[in-house]
Amino acid sequence: MRLVVEFMFLIVSAGAMLGQTHEKAKDAVLAADASWEKVYAVKDLDRSVAFCDKRASLLWPNMPIATGTAAVREAIAKDFAAGDLTWQANKVGLARAEDLAWVSGAYQWKLKDPSGKEFVDKGKYLTVWKKQADGSWKVLFDMFNTDVPLDSGR
Amino acid sequence: MRLVVEFMFLIVSAGAMLGQTHEKAKDAVLAADASWEKVYAVKDLDRSVAFCDKRASLLWPNMPIATGTAAVREAIAKDFAAGDLTWQANKVGLARAEDLAWVSGAYQWKLKDPSGKEFVDKGKYLTVWKKQADGSWKVLFDMFNTDVPLDSGR
Repeated sequence: MRLVVEFMFLIVSAGAMLGQTHEKAKDAVLAADASWEKVYAVKDLDRSVAFCDKRASLLWPNMPIATGTAAVREAIAKDFAAGDLTWQANKVGLARAEDLAWVSGAYQWKLKDPSGKEFVDKGKYLTVWKKQADGSWKVLFDMFNTDVPLDSGR
Repeated sequence: MRLVVEFMFLIVSAGAMLGQTHEKAKDAVLAADASWEKVYAVKDLDRSVAFCDKRASLLWPNMPIATGTAAVREAIAKDFAAGDLTWQANKVGLARAEDLAWVSGAYQWKLKDPSGKEFVDKGKYLTVWKKQADGSWKVLFDMFNTDVPLDSGR
C-alpha cells in the first residue's frame, strides 16, 4: 500500500513538472528554429550545418535525400548559391518526453528563372527536431515544398 | 532509503519495459503506414481520410497546407483524380514515450503531362504519426516532394 501511494505521488509530481516545462520546451524549439533561420539567411555555412544532427536528413525538392553531415553541408552550400531563403515558424509540437519536436511554417525563396529573371517562390516547411544529450535541439529532418500551383506558368 | 530503492526499481523496470516495447511500437507504426498505403493505392477515400488525425495537416506540393478532416478529404480526393500513388517506408523512429513517430520513404506517382502523355514522378515523403487515445496511430503531418531535378525538362 505504501509503495502504491509513493508511486502515485511520483506520477502526479512528474505530471505537474511536465505541465510546467512543456511551454518552456516549445519556446526552446522555436528559439532553435529562429536561430537556425538567422545564420541561414546570412549564409553562414558552418553554423547552419551545426544546427543539424549528425544523422540529419534533408528532404528537399528536386534532389535525393541528403543524410549525414557531409551530404547536409553539400546541400546547404548548393542552396546558398541558388538563392536567398528566409522562413518563419507558425506551429510547434512536442512529444510527451520532450525528446522530439516538430515545427511547421512558411518560407520565401528569392531565385532566378532560367532567363535570369528574379522571382520569389513561396511555400511551407516541416522540421523534426531532436533533443541532444546536452539539452540543445538539432534538426533530424527538414523538408519543404512550394505552394505555387503547377499551372502558374512556372 | 527504502523509497530510493523502490524508485530505482521503478525506473529500471520502466526502462526494461521500454526496451521490450520499442520494436513493437515501430512495427505498429510501419504497419499503419503500410495499411494507409493499401487503402490509398485503391483510392478508398473514406478509409484513406480515416488514417488522418482530426487536426492532421497535409503539406503537399503546389497547394497551401490542408489542415483538418474536411480539407484533408478534399486534398486526397483531388490527388486520387490526378494520378496513381504508391509508396514504401524505409525509415521509422519513435519519441521516447512512444506517442509520436516519423516515417520516411519513397513514392512513385503515375501522372499525365499537359499533353496527356503518361510519366512517373519519383520522390520522398515524411509522415509524422500521433498515437491516439485508443492506441492506434494516425497521421499528424504528411509531406512529399519530387527527386526529379529542375533541369530535367519537366
